[in-house]
Amino acid sequence: MIKASIIGASGYIGQELVRLLLLHPEVEIVMLTSRQFAGEPVGKVFPWLSGVKELTFSQADLDRIAKESDFVFTALPHKVSMEMVAPLTDRGLRVIDLSADFRFRDLKLYEAWYQEHIAPEIAARSVYGMPELFRAQIKDAALVGNPGCYPTTAILALAPLIKNSLIKTKNIIVDSKSGTSGAGRTPRTDMLFCEVNESFRAYAVGTHRHTPEIEEQLSIVGDCEAQVFFSPHLVPMNRGILSTIYALPAGEVTQDELHGVLSDFYADEPFVRVLEEGRLPNTAFVRGTNYCDISVHYDKRTGHVILLSAIDNLIKGGAGQAVQNFNIMAGINESSGLELPSVYP
Amino acid sequence: MIKASIIGASGYIGQELVRLLLLHPEVEIVMLTSRQFAGEPVGKVFPWLSGVKELTFSQADLDRIAKESDFVFTALPHKVSMEMVAPLTDRGLRVIDLSADFRFRDLKLYEAWYQEHIAPEIAARSVYGMPELFRAQIKDAALVGNPGCYPTTAILALAPLIKNSLIKTKNIIVDSKSGTSGAGRTPRTDMLFCEVNESFRAYAVGTHRHTPEIEEQLSIVGDCEAQVFFSPHLVPMNRGILSTIYALPAGEVTQDELHGVLSDFYADEPFVRVLEEGRLPNTAFVRGTNYCDISVHYDKRTGHVILLSAIDNLIKGGAGQAVQNFNIMAGINESSGLELPSVYP
Amino acid sequence: MIKASIIGASGYIGQELVRLLLLHPEVEIVMLTSRQFAGEPVGKVFPWLSGVKELTFSQADLDRIAKESDFVFTALPHKVSMEMVAPLTDRGLRVIDLSADFRFRDLKLYEAWYQEHIAPEIAARSVYGMPELFRAQIKDAALVGNPGCYPTTAILALAPLIKNSLIKTKNIIVDSKSGTSGAGRTPRTDMLFCEVNESFRAYAVGTHRHTPEIEEQLSIVGDCEAQVFFSPHLVPMNRGILSTIYALPAGEVTQDELHGVLSDFYADEPFVRVLEEGRLPNTAFVRGTNYCDISVHYDKRTGHVILLSAIDNLIKGGAGQAVQNFNIMAGINESSGLELPSVYP
Amino acid sequence: MIKASIIGASGYIGQELVRLLLLHPEVEIVMLTSRQFAGEPVGKVFPWLSGVKELTFSQADLDRIAKESDFVFTALPHKVSMEMVAPLTDRGLRVIDLSADFRFRDLKLYEAWYQEHIAPEIAARSVYGMPELFRAQIKDAALVGNPGCYPTTAILALAPLIKNSLIKTKNIIVDSKSGTSGAGRTPRTDMLFCEVNESFRAYAVGTHRHTPEIEEQLSIVGDCEAQVFFSPHLVPMNRGILSTIYALPAGEVTQDELHGVLSDFYADEPFVRVLEEGRLPNTAFVRGTNYCDISVHYDKRTGHVILLSAIDNLIKGGAGQAVQNFNIMAGINESSGLELPSVYP
Repeated sequence: MIKASIIGASGYIGQELVRLLLLHPEVEIVMLTSRQFAGEPVGKVFPWLSGVKELTFSQADLDRIAKESDFVFTALPHKVSMEMVAPLTDRGLRVIDLSADFRFRDLKLYEAWYQEHIAPEIAARSVYGMPELFRAQIKDAALVGNPGCYPTTAILALAPLIKNSLIKTKNIIVDSKSGTSGAGRTPRTDMLFCEVNESFRAYAVGTHRHTPEIEEQLSIVGDCEAQVFFSPHLVPMNRGILSTIYALPAGEVTQDELHGVLSDFYADEPFVRVLEEGRLPNTAFVRGTNYCDISVHYDKRTGHVILLSAIDNLIKGGAGQAVQNFNIMAGINESSGLELPSVYP
Repeated sequence: MIKASIIGASGYIGQELVRLLLLHPEVEIVMLTSRQFAGEPVGKVFPWLSGVKELTFSQADLDRIAKESDFVFTALPHKVSMEMVAPLTDRGLRVIDLSADFRFRDLKLYEAWYQEHIAPEIAARSVYGMPELFRAQIKDAALVGNPGCYPTTAILALAPLIKNSLIKTKNIIVDSKSGTSGAGRTPRTDMLFCEVNESFRAYAVGTHRHTPEIEEQLSIVGDCEAQVFFSPHLVPMNRGILSTIYALPAGEVTQDELHGVLSDFYADEPFVRVLEEGRLPNTAFVRGTNYCDISVHYDKRTGHVILLSAIDNLIKGGAGQAVQNFNIMAGINESSGLELPSVYP
Repeated sequence: MIKASIIGASGYIGQELVRLLLLHPEVEIVMLTSRQFAGEPVGKVFPWLSGVKELTFSQADLDRIAKESDFVFTALPHKVSMEMVAPLTDRGLRVIDLSADFRFRDLKLYEAWYQEHIAPEIAARSVYGMPELFRAQIKDAALVGNPGCYPTTAILALAPLIKNSLIKTKNIIVDSKSGTSGAGRTPRTDMLFCEVNESFRAYAVGTHRHTPEIEEQLSIVGDCEAQVFFSPHLVPMNRGILSTIYALPAGEVTQDELHGVLSDFYADEPFVRVLEEGRLPNTAFVRGTNYCDISVHYDKRTGHVILLSAIDNLIKGGAGQAVQNFNIMAGINESSGLELPSVYP
Repeated sequence: MIKASIIGASGYIGQELVRLLLLHPEVEIVMLTSRQFAGEPVGKVFPWLSGVKELTFSQADLDRIAKESDFVFTALPHKVSMEMVAPLTDRGLRVIDLSADFRFRDLKLYEAWYQEHIAPEIAARSVYGMPELFRAQIKDAALVGNPGCYPTTAILALAPLIKNSLIKTKNIIVDSKSGTSGAGRTPRTDMLFCEVNESFRAYAVGTHRHTPEIEEQLSIVGDCEAQVFFSPHLVPMNRGILSTIYALPAGEVTQDELHGVLSDFYADEPFVRVLEEGRLPNTAFVRGTNYCDISVHYDKRTGHVILLSAIDNLIKGGAGQAVQNFNIMAGINESSGLELPSVYP
């Protein structure tokens, strides 16, 4: 059994990570820390996990964590993560960080969209934790910055086409629609049931902080300066993101070519399903799983390339992708603990 | 009291029309026809209307309708409408048709996306029933083709900018999200509660028949050949459409200019609200009303113009707009029967 | 026009009252007070009311209210209401209070379930605002205590049978299911969309404070000591309460007799619909309206009487009933401003 | 690996069974039959299972099934099951039947509430598949009648109290609330998203066919003639049943005693969680799992015993309980394939 600890677990992504690791056949959880819930059994705080395994939240004791664990997952708000990760990597722990703090190669980007970065040396050694693109580097990484939920959908869909120079790298539009678990578990009037149910709206149009993350990764993949307009929307559902992505072809292109490139790119990937032509992704088809479903469409009439991609934002867009990274880092079966049954309907 | 009849009222748009006309202070309903429900009281078929007013569905008796009514609303499937409208206009009735059959000026377009048109002479005299654009023509029209739900959001948002040559007329993307009442009331597996709830998906990407309707009207407004890529999505809610629209500026443009043009265009309109900067439309804010809420955003960084527009698809996107057209045709207060209280939450 | 003010309007019931009074044809709103929103236009705070009528929230100026208004609606939390109502009635205003503070005839009951009552003399003169039972007293009341949402469903269903001694007054079970707008608009983790959606649960089983309100009114109606076990549940929807009520017949009884008694009792009531046999209430059929739909069933096999009743909790269970009381007090048409179109679906 | 086949898998319970058996570590699926989908790969029919395991639906070939399988699950409508099961047991297969056809010991009851029974000899040998009550008989059964979803909640909650003579066996009320997956996947107008969303209603009040199933089992457990009034309700959610159960104490009773009896009864059960006092079941806490959560409450004031129980209707109320029965029959770990991660939120 591989020994792992989780720091920070009171949010939706955090609890999903607790759930996945509790059920992971090759993981033993050493410590589960939470300032809010220290001293309380997991089953009391999260009644749905009652009876699964006995475990109690505690205060973060870094020395004990370092002594007894090999891996640490940090599921903290950005900025808090930045302060916490250094003492962990200093103690020789391998870290999978679920915040935004270690996702950026260019810290000027981070600082322009977030805030000053206080751990630039550590950030310089971190690897962007998207297995489909950076598996080799993840394998040996001391620190992985786990991707954001929206960027996971956008990058997985666009990367193959950008890498193969099939689409222009400007004028890309990512119109994303997310369930509300992405907004977290902190009480807010605008996230009350009555405010979200029977409503649909956009937010942070053109200003969302996942924009530079998408752009940086696409630029790396395509060795270019990708530019993306990103507009997120809120769907009255708990889980799931569907992104509708519009791009312009770089030259002559056909539906078959586009579909072929995507299919080849992900042919051996356990968690990306490129849909047959005629099929469209649906967030319900990936709910409860680590899959990303992608379809591609070429519209001859108007000359647009359209990509659709769907994930469960808490799994492939968060805790599941973190476990996938962990599996790679630990050298075990990449799908271990992630062969999750879908929950339909 | 103005005498009106409704032909076909078993769908969601039809029943909404029944509801609005039953409560309209200046309308007396002469006949309410339904093949399915002939002989049954309205309150039995639609229990939520029980006790409101006594009225019974009947078979369509065109002579009686013509003898006793001045106006007829036809809320029939397309193609069925095409056959029904001629005998009505022949009898001298003024008709508001809620199908797609009389929305097109260029019947080749209709025939390319729908089917052969069997009443081209009548179609030639019909007016596209969008009061904000064609109020003068609607006033005297014998036949009005009531706009589609999606086109209402797209055209109202784009028309002012296209008319003022502020945006390019190609590469317009309309990414729309609709509640499921738009899919109608016919039983279908994919519209069952369990299939829609906790799901989000696109459908008819690039192939939806509202595409040519949007393009034709924008082309008329801008005296150009507008081209639109339209992708509709299904939201797990009953009512509401939000469209996120992406366009490219035709030249230099500023946020203030865009907002000013929209605000001026709709300054005197009773049912279009151009939102202050910093505000975004929400389908919940227009639910149960005849309003269309619109916001506009210029993204300097990427050079995109983004428009958001929201309506209640059954009201401004259907029955409400039909009543607004009727009010104009009848020469009464345009808002009569449409000062509907919003229902929030 | 009758002049009225509203004190406290930031909750769901409060905003519904604002909406109803803004649209009421015979009311002019003098002041609309809100500590939280003083100085802000209604349309900014409640965007769905934007454009309806211009009005601005202000601090509560009791002297101005008294000088310029005839009626005041107080939509405040209980306890706060208790302190506010005395200065209003002292100034000669007629008050409709939407809190629990003036619903009880026996203040010992209030004090056992809520807290000490600080205005017993005023409470002694208040009338329980259920028009179907106390219309005559409401007409001349200086102060009306508007009924709770759950009690409205229970009392309207049970009163005719208790008054006619058809059911036993003990062992009555009221199993109620409510949408979440009843929980108010204050941010709470357990009312977040993700916590409520796809969940169903009971709360306050046997301990909810609407219990004594139901019991007191049934005891008055039946001149008995009615006892009720009340268990509320939370439904993942915004609006609506359905109560399933179980009672035992007091003697021999038939379905026809039960249905006849209910039908007769409410024969002339504008807002109670006793459903035909074979029909069951549905919260969706009363959504957006002031109706209470009731059905009654006698189960010969087990000897139970079952009543089902449904309301829109914010309207008949709150703001709508308050307006109905106001109409009665003001001597105008009892349905004025309440002929609300249902919103289905 | 134990070889099993599934006959009939196009409904929600059927597909859930397919999903559970595909992921079951000790099961090899031999045949998966479906008249509707014969010839199609599972992943095409149920896209959410795409990529999990390759398997194709076929026509039911009983000889091949008998030759290659040891166990058969029949997930067919009642009546169809009755005809199908005999040829299977005749061929020596051990059968878990998910219809109502083999749940009854007294076929007169079945015939009074369903229809004529055509396989009484086979029915006489079937065992009611509730592991917590009949584990020993299930172990050696040739045929198990898997319990109904509602009865699972009612019987698990009531059995310990009835067995211990703590409550009266008449005047039991079971007020159940179910998500809509219980209504199946056949297209019906009243199950369309728009009809169910934002609505709550009762149906089949006092006439639902799960009534005699509950009564028979409680009568067996308590060696009495139990009588239950059962009223099901429809909740706008996909999965989950919460039953609120009202009973009268048989004599003096205390909260501690009731809680103690329930806790002891289920002390060793892997899938029943008796909640600590102060905790209430929530369907969301059992979603995606095979758990039944139960709480008990004694209300001194009115003298009622109240039980609340919650399950995922497709798992503990259907496919999961079937797999649990299979595990017992096959002599393997009873929890095998059922250590399902909950899906919260």
